[in-house]
Amino acid sequence: MRVAVVGTGLIGGSIGLAARARLGATVVGVDPEPGAAIETGAIDRAAPLAEAVAGADAVFVATPVGVLEEVVGTVLAAAPPGCLVTDTGSVKRAVVAAADDERFVGGHPLAGAEGGGARAAREDLFDGATWYLTPTRATSGVQLERLHRLLTALGARPAVIDAEAHDGVMAAVSHLPHVLANVLVGQAAAALGDDRAGGWAHVGPSFRDATRVAGANPELWADIYSANADALVAELDAAIAALRDARDDVAAGRSLLGRQLEAAAHREALHTAAAGGELAELRVVVPNRPGVVADIALTLSREGINLADMSLAPSPDMATGALALWVPRDCDDRARTLLADLGLTA
Amino acid sequence: MRVAVVGTGLIGGSIGLAARARLGATVVGVDPEPGAAIETGAIDRAAPLAEAVAGADAVFVATPVGVLEEVVGTVLAAAPPGCLVTDTGSVKRAVVAAADDERFVGGHPLAGAEGGGARAAREDLFDGATWYLTPTRATSGVQLERLHRLLTALGARPAVIDAEAHDGVMAAVSHLPHVLANVLVGQAAAALGDDRAGGWAHVGPSFRDATRVAGANPELWADIYSANADALVAELDAAIAALRDARDDVAAGRSLLGRQLEAAAHREALHTAAAGGELAELRVVVPNRPGVVADIALTLSREGINLADMSLAPSPDMATGALALWVPRDCDDRARTLLADLGLTA
Repeated sequence: MRVAVVGTGLIGGSIGLAARARLGATVVGVDPEPGAAIETGAIDRAAPLAEAVAGADAVFVATPVGVLEEVVGTVLAAAPPGCLVTDTGSVKRAVVAAADDERFVGGHPLAGAEGGGARAAREDLFDGATWYLTPTRATSGVQLERLHRLLTALGARPAVIDAEAHDGVMAAVSHLPHVLANVLVGQAAAALGDDRAGGWAHVGPSFRDATRVAGANPELWADIYSANADALVAELDAAIAALRDARDDVAAGRSLLGRQLEAAAHREALHTAAAGGELAELRVVVPNRPGVVADIALTLSREGINLADMSLAPSPDMATGALALWVPRDCDDRARTLLADLGLTA
Repeated sequence: MRVAVVGTGLIGGSIGLAARARLGATVVGVDPEPGAAIETGAIDRAAPLAEAVAGADAVFVATPVGVLEEVVGTVLAAAPPGCLVTDTGSVKRAVVAAADDERFVGGHPLAGAEGGGARAAREDLFDGATWYLTPTRATSGVQLERLHRLLTALGARPAVIDAEAHDGVMAAVSHLPHVLANVLVGQAAAALGDDRAGGWAHVGPSFRDATRVAGANPELWADIYSANADALVAELDAAIAALRDARDDVAAGRSLLGRQLEAAAHREALHTAAAGGELAELRVVVPNRPGVVADIALTLSREGINLADMSLAPSPDMATGALALWVPRDCDDRARTLLADLGLTA
C-alpha cells in the first residue's frame, strides 16, 4: 500500500510510523522541512506534492487548519481516480464543504494536539483514540469503508459524525475552554499585577490546572478559533449568558448552591465516562522529595492497582505536594490501605 | 501556651497538631463532633465554646465561611482581655468589619482548602504556605506581632494584606475559576448530552484539567461565593466583558492571535513565579501500566532531579498516557537525556 502524508508534524509523522509498521505501507512525505520525518523513520522518502499524491492509494492531509482547504483542493486535483483522500483538521465543516468529491472523507483524530512536531511522533499515538470521520452525501461508500478499516488498523477507533455536530462539540469541550483559560490568566494578571498580594507565587494548584492550556500554540489556536468561528461564537454566547445568570444571582444575594450541585453531577459523569469505568479519587499530601511519588506509584503497582490519572501540585515552598490519584473504584479501599502503610492518609 | 480551636476540620485540626507538636501548646477543641480530632491527636480535649475560650491565650476560628461572623462575635464576647483571636476564612472583609476589636486579626492560610475533614489534618499542612493576615486600624500591634510569630512557628509564611485587596485577589484567582469550571461542564453536558458524538468518553485531558474544581464542595463554595459577592461580581463582569470582546472579534472574522500570545506570556509568568524559579515542561507519552510513571520519577530522582509538578492524562483506551513533567529549567537537558535512556522522547 502506498500512503502519502502531507504535513509531517506530530500527527502526520505518527500516521507515517503506524502505516509503515502496521500496514507495511510505503509512506511518502510532503513537507517543506522533511528532515525530522525521514530521520525518525516516519516516512520512507520525501517528494513534491504532485509526485507523492500521483502514486498514492491513500493521502492524509495533516497540515495546520488555516491552509487545510487549499491543500486538500490541490491534493484532490492531483490524486488519481480511486485514491482515498482524508485530512486530520480539528475543525471540519469548511474543508468538508470545499472538498465535494467522492474520494474525500474528513477526519479528526483526538490525539496529541498539543506541542509535538515530527520528533514527538509515535507509532502508537492513535491506539484507542477516537478518530472522528465526517463523510457527506458526496463521499463514496467504498472510500469511507476503506478509511474506517485503515484507521482501525492504525489502532484508532473511528466514529462517524456529522461535520456540523463535530464542530459544535469541539467548540464546547475544546475551543471554549481555551478561550476561558486565556481570560482567567488575564484577570489574574490584572489582580496580581502590582504584586500587592505577593504575586503569582501565591496562586494555588487549582488555578494552575484551570489554566494549563492558556496561550497554547498561539498561531495554531488562532487558526482553529477562526475556522470554527460560528460554533465558537455560539458557545461564547452561552458562556456569557451562564456567567451573567450566575452574576445576577450573586449580585442579588441568591445562593449558587444549585449551580454548584449541578456542576458536581456533571463532573462525576465526566470522570465516570472518561475512564471507561468508575474511578475513585484519593488525595494525599506527600513530601516533595525525589522518589516519594515514585514509591507510591510502585507500591500501588506491585498490588496491580494502576493509576488512571494523577495530579501533583506542590506547596508554595515546594516542600510538600498535594497528590490526587484516580484509581478504579473497586481498588479504592485497597489503595487506601496501601497508602496508610506508607504513613499517608487518603 | 493554651490554644483554642473552634471548628476542628482539616484546617482547625492541622492548627491543633502543629500547635501541640511545635509550640508545646495545650489545645482545646470546640466542635459538635470532636471525636476525630481527639483520636488523631489534633486536640488535647474538647470543651464548650465559652469554657475553651475563657482559658485560652489564642483562639483560632476555623468554621465554614457562612457562620464566621457569628462565631467570631461569640468568641470575642467570651474571650478574656489580652486573648488573641483570629480566623481562617477564605473571604475576609465581612468578618474583619464585624470584629472591630483590638484582640482580633483576620487570617487566611492558603492550604488544603479542598476536601479533608479532621482525619486529613497534618502537622505540616502550613509549612511554607502563605498565610494572609488582614489587620485593621483597630487591631492591637501586640496581637498582630504575636500572631505573626505564632504562624511562623507553625511553619507558615505570614503575609499582611488589606482585607479588600485580599478578597479581590481571591475573587480573581480562586472564586472566578470555580464559577467558570461550572459553566464549562454545563456546556459540555449540553453539547454531549444526546451522545451524538460518543459522549463524555471523548473529552480530552485538557478539558479534565480545566474542570477539576467544577462542583467542588457545594455547600462550602456556595458560602464563599456569597461572602465575596461584590468582588466576585466585579470579576464576573470583567470575564463577561473579556468574553464579549473575544466573541465580537471571532464573529467579525478578526484573529485572536494577539489574545493568545498575551495569555501565553501570562502563563509563562505564572509558571516561573509559582515554582520560585524557572521550570521547564517536558512531555512524554508512556504506556499506562503499573510502574511506568514510578520508573520515570525514580530515574529522575536518582539523579537528584525533583518534579515540581506532574500531570498524567490517559488516552481514551487507557493504554497510554500523556505525561507532563515540570523540572527546574537547569535540569532540563539532563532530564531529557534520562528520559531518552528510557526510550522516551520529551
